[in-house]
Amino acid sequence: LRKRKIINDPLYGFIRISEEIIFDLIEHPYFQRLRRIKQLGLTHLIYPGALHTRFHHALGAMHLMQKALTNLRSKGVEISDEEYTGALIAILLHDIGHGPFSHSLEHAIVEGVNHEMISVALMEDLNRQFNGQLETGISIFNGSYPKKFLHDLVSSQLDVDRLDYLRRDSFYTGVSEGIVGLDRIIEMMAVDQNELVIERKGIYSVEKFIIARRMMYWQVYLHKTSVAVDQLIVAILKRAKWLTQNGDKLFASSSLQYFLNHTGAVDLGSPEVIDRFTAMDDTDLECAMKEWIYSSDKVLSELCRRLVQRDLPKIHMQSEEITQADYEQAIGRLRQVYPDWNQEELDCLIYRGMVKNDAYKAEQNSIKVLDKHGLRTELSLASDNYNLHALEETVTKYFICYPK
Amino acid sequence: LRKRKIINDPLYGFIRISEEIIFDLIEHPYFQRLRRIKQLGLTHLIYPGALHTRFHHALGAMHLMQKALTNLRSKGVEISDEEYTGALIAILLHDIGHGPFSHSLEHAIVEGVNHEMISVALMEDLNRQFNGQLETGISIFNGSYPKKFLHDLVSSQLDVDRLDYLRRDSFYTGVSEGIVGLDRIIEMMAVDQNELVIERKGIYSVEKFIIARRMMYWQVYLHKTSVAVDQLIVAILKRAKWLTQNGDKLFASSSLQYFLNHTGAVDLGSPEVIDRFTAMDDTDLECAMKEWIYSSDKVLSELCRRLVQRDLPKIHMQSEEITQADYEQAIGRLRQVYPDWNQEELDCLIYRGMVKNDAYKAEQNSIKVLDKHGLRTELSLASDNYNLHALEETVTKYFICYPK
Amino acid sequence: LRKRKIINDPLYGFIRISEEIIFDLIEHPYFQRLRRIKQLGLTHLIYPGALHTRFHHALGAMHLMQKALTNLRSKGVEISDEEYTGALIAILLHDIGHGPFSHSLEHAIVEGVNHEMISVALMEDLNRQFNGQLETGISIFNGSYPKKFLHDLVSSQLDVDRLDYLRRDSFYTGVSEGIVGLDRIIEMMAVDQNELVIERKGIYSVEKFIIARRMMYWQVYLHKTSVAVDQLIVAILKRAKWLTQNGDKLFASSSLQYFLNHTGAVDLGSPEVIDRFTAMDDTDLECAMKEWIYSSDKVLSELCRRLVQRDLPKIHMQSEEITQADYEQAIGRLRQVYPDWNQEELDCLIYRGMVKNDAYKAEQNSIKVLDKHGLRTELSLASDNYNLHALEETVTKYFICYPK
Amino acid sequence: LRKRKIINDPLYGFIRISEEIIFDLIEHPYFQRLRRIKQLGLTHLIYPGALHTRFHHALGAMHLMQKALTNLRSKGVEISDEEYTGALIAILLHDIGHGPFSHSLEHAIVEGVNHEMISVALMEDLNRQFNGQLETGISIFNGSYPKKFLHDLVSSQLDVDRLDYLRRDSFYTGVSEGIVGLDRIIEMMAVDQNELVIERKGIYSVEKFIIARRMMYWQVYLHKTSVAVDQLIVAILKRAKWLTQNGDKLFASSSLQYFLNHTGAVDLGSPEVIDRFTAMDDTDLECAMKEWIYSSDKVLSELCRRLVQRDLPKIHMQSEEITQADYEQAIGRLRQVYPDWNQEELDCLIYRGMVKNDAYKAEQNSIKVLDKHGLRTELSLASDNYNLHALEETVTKYFICYPK
Repeated sequence: LRKRKIINDPLYGFIRISEEIIFDLIEHPYFQRLRRIKQLGLTHLIYPGALHTRFHHALGAMHLMQKALTNLRSKGVEISDEEYTGALIAILLHDIGHGPFSHSLEHAIVEGVNHEMISVALMEDLNRQFNGQLETGISIFNGSYPKKFLHDLVSSQLDVDRLDYLRRDSFYTGVSEGIVGLDRIIEMMAVDQNELVIERKGIYSVEKFIIARRMMYWQVYLHKTSVAVDQLIVAILKRAKWLTQNGDKLFASSSLQYFLNHTGAVDLGSPEVIDRFTAMDDTDLECAMKEWIYSSDKVLSELCRRLVQRDLPKIHMQSEEITQADYEQAIGRLRQVYPDWNQEELDCLIYRGMVKNDAYKAEQNSIKVLDKHGLRTELSLASDNYNLHALEETVTKYFICYPK
Repeated sequence: LRKRKIINDPLYGFIRISEEIIFDLIEHPYFQRLRRIKQLGLTHLIYPGALHTRFHHALGAMHLMQKALTNLRSKGVEISDEEYTGALIAILLHDIGHGPFSHSLEHAIVEGVNHEMISVALMEDLNRQFNGQLETGISIFNGSYPKKFLHDLVSSQLDVDRLDYLRRDSFYTGVSEGIVGLDRIIEMMAVDQNELVIERKGIYSVEKFIIARRMMYWQVYLHKTSVAVDQLIVAILKRAKWLTQNGDKLFASSSLQYFLNHTGAVDLGSPEVIDRFTAMDDTDLECAMKEWIYSSDKVLSELCRRLVQRDLPKIHMQSEEITQADYEQAIGRLRQVYPDWNQEELDCLIYRGMVKNDAYKAEQNSIKVLDKHGLRTELSLASDNYNLHALEETVTKYFICYPK
Repeated sequence: LRKRKIINDPLYGFIRISEEIIFDLIEHPYFQRLRRIKQLGLTHLIYPGALHTRFHHALGAMHLMQKALTNLRSKGVEISDEEYTGALIAILLHDIGHGPFSHSLEHAIVEGVNHEMISVALMEDLNRQFNGQLETGISIFNGSYPKKFLHDLVSSQLDVDRLDYLRRDSFYTGVSEGIVGLDRIIEMMAVDQNELVIERKGIYSVEKFIIARRMMYWQVYLHKTSVAVDQLIVAILKRAKWLTQNGDKLFASSSLQYFLNHTGAVDLGSPEVIDRFTAMDDTDLECAMKEWIYSSDKVLSELCRRLVQRDLPKIHMQSEEITQADYEQAIGRLRQVYPDWNQEELDCLIYRGMVKNDAYKAEQNSIKVLDKHGLRTELSLASDNYNLHALEETVTKYFICYPK
Repeated sequence: LRKRKIINDPLYGFIRISEEIIFDLIEHPYFQRLRRIKQLGLTHLIYPGALHTRFHHALGAMHLMQKALTNLRSKGVEISDEEYTGALIAILLHDIGHGPFSHSLEHAIVEGVNHEMISVALMEDLNRQFNGQLETGISIFNGSYPKKFLHDLVSSQLDVDRLDYLRRDSFYTGVSEGIVGLDRIIEMMAVDQNELVIERKGIYSVEKFIIARRMMYWQVYLHKTSVAVDQLIVAILKRAKWLTQNGDKLFASSSLQYFLNHTGAVDLGSPEVIDRFTAMDDTDLECAMKEWIYSSDKVLSELCRRLVQRDLPKIHMQSEEITQADYEQAIGRLRQVYPDWNQEELDCLIYRGMVKNDAYKAEQNSIKVLDKHGLRTELSLASDNYNLHALEETVTKYFICYPK
């Protein structure tokens, strides 16, 4: 009997691992670290079930990749065993470079790089450690592999990454609007002219997927309170970095300390940076922010207290830009609450910005629909109802955020 | 329009909060702390979905309490509004005294008290803060309230605590054997002679509940690897406390530091103890154990590395006691792997003990079945199949645990 | 202990019946008859799970009504016990006048009346049998009851009838696009100015409901093959009636025979019509159509054979009207397959027509959204995305249908 | 692109058909007939959702067979394409010989044969029609094929037939006690010594399967009212046959008429018998029983009225045999209600009998468990809890049944 590893998943029942290299990659500390990085950061403050990790998402996306590849093979698409494993590796590691509270971190203390750049650096590192076994996977990931449809499965407007995270985020938040008929979408996938396409019969499922995505944006990813929490974290991390660089010795794990001390863009070529980055996860930040309540800096202490005790900022979101008058009014009120804080300190409590919701873009890497005569049409043209055109509109909203 | 708060729950859709006191208790930092305490500790190392918190469980159990009370009222059982709210308070706070990795903590660094004692202390503290509004809730919780069936709903062999945690743990681990027909069990609850009973028609649902409970014990709560992880955490915490008390200054949040320094039984009457305890959660321990990999103590470092990188101990479980010979053989092998460690240090790597599985006890506070003629029978007598009698047997297993 | 009846439902777990009059209405042969009338006629030829009955739908809609009323009461809306029971009666009986393959029947053999008229006649009959206990229910049903919101719950663009049938049809067909967050929609219902409205926070759930409805139209209610099957049934019934009225004695239950014999509009005031109508269900038609394969009329035999053996007609659906040329081409082909059939006979094999999909109409009885300041807006104006406007467009499609 | 057919299934999402012969068998009128035969007869009178058909069950079992075979292949078990298709054919057709209300029919009007014998006859007929393409399938079905494990998948204590019907019946009745972890059981299947076995890790899933089976027996298959309905149908059919053979001309489709007229054992070698049998389904009986309410025979009329209007018999079930005194008491009461009926007529209203529940038999074709060292143990010996032994006990109950 050949051995197979099985991992339970509340969503899919279980996930099978058959290839040794996949098993070894999962066991690697770089990947195990993802167990301690929540997919949706502090969104669980709004949806308390949203505690799922990037570890589980990566496995889930790999599970969908297995299904998609098996389905394509059964339709006669040629996929060698090496390509099969390569595609699994590409999707398994696609988010390996995410840090804790990823977007906040990138904006606050790990400067000059984004998570995609770190993913590439870590994949290359792993490829060295595994003697080149990741070659095919990496070239599928970065789009240089000749069979473009494999890359499409990893990264496109209908990739298994999106399929898993939409479904998983919907499941754990309990926002049923994000539920998507995964099995049907995967069943309807086909390959035409080396690209991933959708069979005509699957068009309703894809439409629903795009509508679900837009709804998840408004209800989860860009949820008002969620945006406010993100702003608060960025403010905390920036303050902590500023204090550190001005000589304060804050409580922090050695890895977090390293990035608080670091100035300028980080160098992904440096082994120390990689070591420190891969040792850091949600617990470093969560534990530190909790301890910083006891900080002698009144601003840091107040920001952290508000986060930990869930005394979250109020947020206004609107279609029009936030005016200077709106800002003046907000800061005026704050001045009364914090009479001994100076302007710079008060600004740590007020955040302005904007968010965008692009459910589907027909121009870039659009979804193609294949009818039974082999004709290809772009999705929003293939659809006979008017919703999809509507979904192509980008919706922009502006916000201002301050303590209640 | 009266305002109502709604909290999403992947399990029940959503949970409604209608009473102001309930809303205020949930907002309180003591309760918010439960957001950072996982229900199943590090069981997510085995079942990666098992990240749900005591916060969500407490809300879920309260939700079931609402259903149970509404059902009983609709059957003509008299429950005043004060009793209704009291029962909600009792179940909401029933686990308020749990710390991070509760059982491990109690065995290692918070000495002389258990979580039930802490729960009582915190409830009394909250009762003072809320000017006596928790009186009824507390007397329902501790069993002194005259309507005994309300206490039965909070704590008995068929209480809403068990109903929620079995269902919730089953859901998040993905172990479908624990799925239980909650709605049906709740529908079948009735009150007879001031006690909670089950209508005859609900007997299959209750049988299944008990069988599911036993299966969850073997597959989750007493899962081999889970037992091994618990042992490893206890070993880490004991070593850390020993090092601290011998003069080492380990990385730790101030609250964790407090308990590492503390000697002897803790005094729940001390405000400082309460402050420190309620400031501590999973992140304090997880972050510290990760940092202790860099400790100068080779034992602590090795134990923490094994935990963080998921290089978990091997465990043997058996019906017979572990013999001294088994132990000698294990330690002999370890001596070869760690030639420069002394006996005391090696003993930090080997754990022995036993676990028990009692699915149902007919004697203590047994489940009563009520037939349509108003006759009461104890569950295992009422059942016409032989499973239940079998389930009354306690199964004991012995284990030994050491690095692979 | 007060008695309550429980009916299992795969969708909602179970449905409770607490009122005696409801229990008695369900037991009545008029209502029991609905057990033998499938909600979706022969749609199970396309989706084999779609065997659910009008009996189960009526109970399900009543279950949702219970939830909706309980929710409104908890928000402070006054609903007396008599109104509560009246609303349950209204929804329970809202479809009582449906016959087997309802729409086909109305077009073919029960002439001059539609199912709404029959529903009213049967409700009045039941009201007499139950000594006026249905008064309030009937006035809620027909909209004459002063509290208009109760009628809105029974019949509007967001009534519990639609909520149940969309969810139920989606469930049994397995078309996941129709899944709707029922609990959330019901939770968001409120009453303003005596009308049913939706709270602002529920807007995404309502949008999704409307989108789901449109998708269910294309994928189920107006599914190509489903439309073809309907046409085939109408053709069969018309032929059978024509043959009967021309002296043929076809196999038929006495009730079906009655309607095959009947000429002109039926008189709902006649007790015989009521008796005969309420004795007829799916089995009368299904059994007869199966037996008619042995009919000496070659047309009836061929039509029935095609239906029973699932040798279904081909159907073309398009945005443009079917031209005379399309028809000529189709009939030309048929002439070769059935060389000895005359024109009139061949016309029994070809069907033309059109279908429409109106997901939502802003003008008529539109859905109103209530924000937290108490302001009301029509749904498509309240929504900040463009989908809803798109959904107001009626889509019309034309079809022609003939044997493969 | 190779073509594949997809059939929606509320339970599994959808079922794929890839092989042409499978597709053709499904299209065949013998198989289409199963669309009109409900899996659970008139159990929907108790559980209104239980309308699922033998058609859907056969497809579902085939779907599980596909999964099981794919899983075994991935573990290295050799299964040729012909064997794969053969196993699908065997399971697809395993119930092809079921008639309407199968068990009742066999006891009442189709004498001397059972559904297994008819299944074999129909398979052989189909094999002729399909030029021998069913050879392998038939030999797998009847156990003569050398690879015994393929037969085990079709028919054993853990076959895919049971897996599907338990899960499906549980789903449609809404009796959650029957829910079984199908995926896990199938994943744990392996082949040892040419037989189907279960890997050690799957033991809890199998235990739960057996417990679920027992519970489904008591709650569904042997549900008191369900037993009463079966008895009533048998009584109706026997009366109808007796009347027919005594010269009455009852309303009946020609096929039902054929069997009412027929005396003695039916000859499965006769083409007419096959024709008549395969033309008969639930609608023939349901429609006739409804019409027979108008029969001039007061007994038949009364029995049918009770069935159609759901005025069902009362039933007593007990562990002890029904005594003559019990019978006398019952018939005494009936004599008062029907003073002008004679003894023979009254006996049509009273039914006695017994039912048995064998959840699992260790002796016959027992379930074998395979540990990781390759050792095989019989399931109840492998289990370390006591439930299974308890489940081996056969429970017998006796009943008496008569009008309320």
